[in-house]
Amino acid sequence: MLDRIDHVGIAALDLDGAVAFYARAFGVAPSFREVVEEQGVEEAMIRVGESWIQLLGARGPDTPVGRFLSSRGPGLHHVGYAVGDIEAALARLKAEGVPLIDERPRRGSRGSLVAFAHPKGAGGVLVELVQP
Amino acid sequence: MLDRIDHVGIAALDLDGAVAFYARAFGVAPSFREVVEEQGVEEAMIRVGESWIQLLGARGPDTPVGRFLSSRGPGLHHVGYAVGDIEAALARLKAEGVPLIDERPRRGSRGSLVAFAHPKGAGGVLVELVQP
Repeated sequence: MLDRIDHVGIAALDLDGAVAFYARAFGVAPSFREVVEEQGVEEAMIRVGESWIQLLGARGPDTPVGRFLSSRGPGLHHVGYAVGDIEAALARLKAEGVPLIDERPRRGSRGSLVAFAHPKGAGGVLVELVQP
Repeated sequence: MLDRIDHVGIAALDLDGAVAFYARAFGVAPSFREVVEEQGVEEAMIRVGESWIQLLGARGPDTPVGRFLSSRGPGLHHVGYAVGDIEAALARLKAEGVPLIDERPRRGSRGSLVAFAHPKGAGGVLVELVQP
């Protein structure tokens, strides 16, 4: 059911600083940046093979990423898996008793459909499903 | 310099339980399992596209993954990037002032060379370089 790792989401205290660090340390640069106001986040998307590194900057302290940064500090935030049928994938997680943050898929970036499952039901990992 | 996401390492309190959960919830299963005694870890490797999900079970509380589980709980532990030249990649990280856990590459699984960089120097992310 998992086609590939679509992206690894990494929370950054300073998005510009993180982008500059990845350029210097790893020789990679974002293909694009995008503000997603309804998520309170700015994303810098770095292509790595068939996946992305998604650097995440909070648009304020009272946002999901802002609260994550306050409680856990910067670092690995979530993993996004590409799936062919997000409705079927969500139904399967639900049947497994995994609490869903998004009961229904919603619009993500680049015309995708996305949905998050709660880390409590998934071994502590915040999982995002992405149907490209 | 980063060819692909080689793997995402996920610390599990109960490796057998995590493997069973991934089978039920995501329909995926390990290609192999491996005990790495010198790291105090057992790994279950699940293929996803060109990458792996690496489920990590601690071989005791006083191991790197055991200490991580005690302090942070289960969840995302590290990300491994495939590189073509691990010596050059390490030199670049060192020049950037990133503290290295492994100053020199060491033998990883499947005949690879691996080295870890410290999360303190890399935006809170424990990074593993993998030269296949």
